Amino acid sequence: MSAHAQPSMFWREDVLPSDVAVIQDMTAASGFFRPAEVAVAAELASERLAKGAASGYLFIFAQEGPQVLGYACYGPIAGTLHSWDLYWIVVQKHLRGQGLGSGLLELVEQRVWSADGERLYVETSSLPRYRPTRRFYQSLGYAPQAVLADFYAPGDDKVIYVKRLSRPWTGQPAQKVHCR
Amino acid sequence: MSAHAQPSMFWREDVLPSDVAVIQDMTAASGFFRPAEVAVAAELASERLAKGAASGYLFIFAQEGPQVLGYACYGPIAGTLHSWDLYWIVVQKHLRGQGLGSGLLELVEQRVWSADGERLYVETSSLPRYRPTRRFYQSLGYAPQAVLADFYAPGDDKVIYVKRLSRPWTGQPAQKVHCR
Repeated sequence: MSAHAQPSMFWREDVLPSDVAVIQDMTAASGFFRPAEVAVAAELASERLAKGAASGYLFIFAQEGPQVLGYACYGPIAGTLHSWDLYWIVVQKHLRGQGLGSGLLELVEQRVWSADGERLYVETSSLPRYRPTRRFYQSLGYAPQAVLADFYAPGDDKVIYVKRLSRPWTGQPAQKVHCR
Repeated sequence: MSAHAQPSMFWREDVLPSDVAVIQDMTAASGFFRPAEVAVAAELASERLAKGAASGYLFIFAQEGPQVLGYACYGPIAGTLHSWDLYWIVVQKHLRGQGLGSGLLELVEQRVWSADGERLYVETSSLPRYRPTRRFYQSLGYAPQAVLADFYAPGDDKVIYVKRLSRPWTGQPAQKVHCR
């Protein structure tokens, strides 16, 4: 059974002041991000709290009681008609491999599609330790479109994936999505 | 004689409140940018005024008396070690083709290099009307690295260029750069 099908779990799309610290802790504990990246992740939540939707950053949190289990941050790419970016997707370390990331990303795709988005971009590193990340995106229909050599650091390329959201929705049935 | 060699012209790197409107007018008058893009250009200056260097946006203005002749906006890419982005470079329409854009970009490259940057990225559109823009970058040593199909709009791809700033500086002599 996938984690996001558990009856006590719900999705939340508003951002709370407490989320800044939650995001900081979760991204730091994941072991995937450098301190500067952790700071950026938290900053996007602060930006959203300060500016609201005008920040351009949208969030989805997977939550159970007071616990945030994972989250995604995404938004439209300014200056484009139908292109959106997935900025962050992180799941609590002990909950990996249970389908929570897929559930989050499917809901992001639904939101993007509903908002007239047609292409969702994600970027990740070429380093071996991001192989599970790259497989995760590819398994969900994301195709590698470009590689920018040495982008993050010498030997650490940026891989850009895109998914065209051009077909009718086939993810979780709508009634399983609980937004408060 | 290139525009940036004129004795009365100077470079300015601080950002003034009046620059927000100047940038808005200049980018709108250029004929190259959609209204949403013009808004983003002005927003980066506002962001810089509000947050200072912490905004991550650095500016260089080419100025003569009270007139801004052109400007560039650039900054380090968060989460990378040595990668920088050129966000905007715009020259007043009637001053195009006089070397002002090259002068601005060379100064940006010097600043990036001095700040430990090694790669400068620029992005532009694949549309025919951006051919002069693409030739401008290629003439200054920028190599196309990736194409993201339909990124900006259907039929309007994003072309990503990069220049490796790995060699000693050969641009304008330092004494010709006047910063107040």
